[in-house]
Amino acid sequence: MQFTLPNTIALLSRTPAALNAFLRDLPEGWTTCDEGANTWSAFDVVGHLIHGERTDWMPRAKMILQFGETQSFVPFDRRAQERESQGKSLAQLLDEFSRLRSENLDELRALNLQPADLELRGRHPALGAVTLSQLLATWATHDLTHLHQVSRVMAHQYREAVGPWSAYLGVLHCAGHSAP
Amino acid sequence: MQFTLPNTIALLSRTPAALNAFLRDLPEGWTTCDEGANTWSAFDVVGHLIHGERTDWMPRAKMILQFGETQSFVPFDRRAQERESQGKSLAQLLDEFSRLRSENLDELRALNLQPADLELRGRHPALGAVTLSQLLATWATHDLTHLHQVSRVMAHQYREAVGPWSAYLGVLHCAGHSAP
Repeated sequence: MQFTLPNTIALLSRTPAALNAFLRDLPEGWTTCDEGANTWSAFDVVGHLIHGERTDWMPRAKMILQFGETQSFVPFDRRAQERESQGKSLAQLLDEFSRLRSENLDELRALNLQPADLELRGRHPALGAVTLSQLLATWATHDLTHLHQVSRVMAHQYREAVGPWSAYLGVLHCAGHSAP
Repeated sequence: MQFTLPNTIALLSRTPAALNAFLRDLPEGWTTCDEGANTWSAFDVVGHLIHGERTDWMPRAKMILQFGETQSFVPFDRRAQERESQGKSLAQLLDEFSRLRSENLDELRALNLQPADLELRGRHPALGAVTLSQLLATWATHDLTHLHQVSRVMAHQYREAVGPWSAYLGVLHCAGHSAP
């Protein structure tokens, strides 16, 4: 499948509703348990997605359009949700993620990007030159990497409970593949 | 987190709505593409989940209650969806999965299982003795293994499009962990 802007927006627009349908009002054991020290729960992941909506995807897209490769993106804070989610419920986070994503997609559509725009380059502080289409493809794939993580973290809670079936359940054999 | 029947039902009851919110009316490239020869698309996975609702989980639970370890479960057909999904749309499959899951959970609740029931044993054709609680925990974890798979299969479609960001996206480093 080729990258297209409509395919990317279609996926990005569905993630908040999918997480909402899956996580809202689930017993807290499913949503607050993690995989051990220095790992994230589903609650942590939703907070991380919110921080991305605020500081990563659209701010970087606008930096590419405005500054090209002349200015590096602001490094992303992967631990911001530890502060920003404090005192909030999962329901509040799900609502906030949904609202921010919707606003960001409205802003993305309003840019009316053309094929030539998608080839414009920016500068990632660690990866170097990247294109606008790579940034937008990564926004969608980043949703998928965290859906993949949430399903793995939740499955971990029943690792013992499934008994001998663990041999057949691929998600229990996923090593995590953490980002550097 | 400990296994409990309410926690298990809470998760099982949400999976159809989560898949529906994520997959319905997505461009077909996302839902019909797979990871290569002998791998499944999201469309294939929903068909597989339907076959499980028809032939695996509740039929096996009832076999445990009726026959204990004296009769082995009927082996599960992991390729049934290749026949059964033919000619159907993804929207039809999502509706069918939702309806069957709802009926099965109604039937599970009506059994009014007590703690002693959950320790009853049945016989798996390959794994040997298994308990009813292990079967029910596996039902929920099986949903999670396929959410994990669907997110991985969809991410695979943008493997090239993300460019250098692939290094940071854990889902692109998941080897699949196929069941034997």
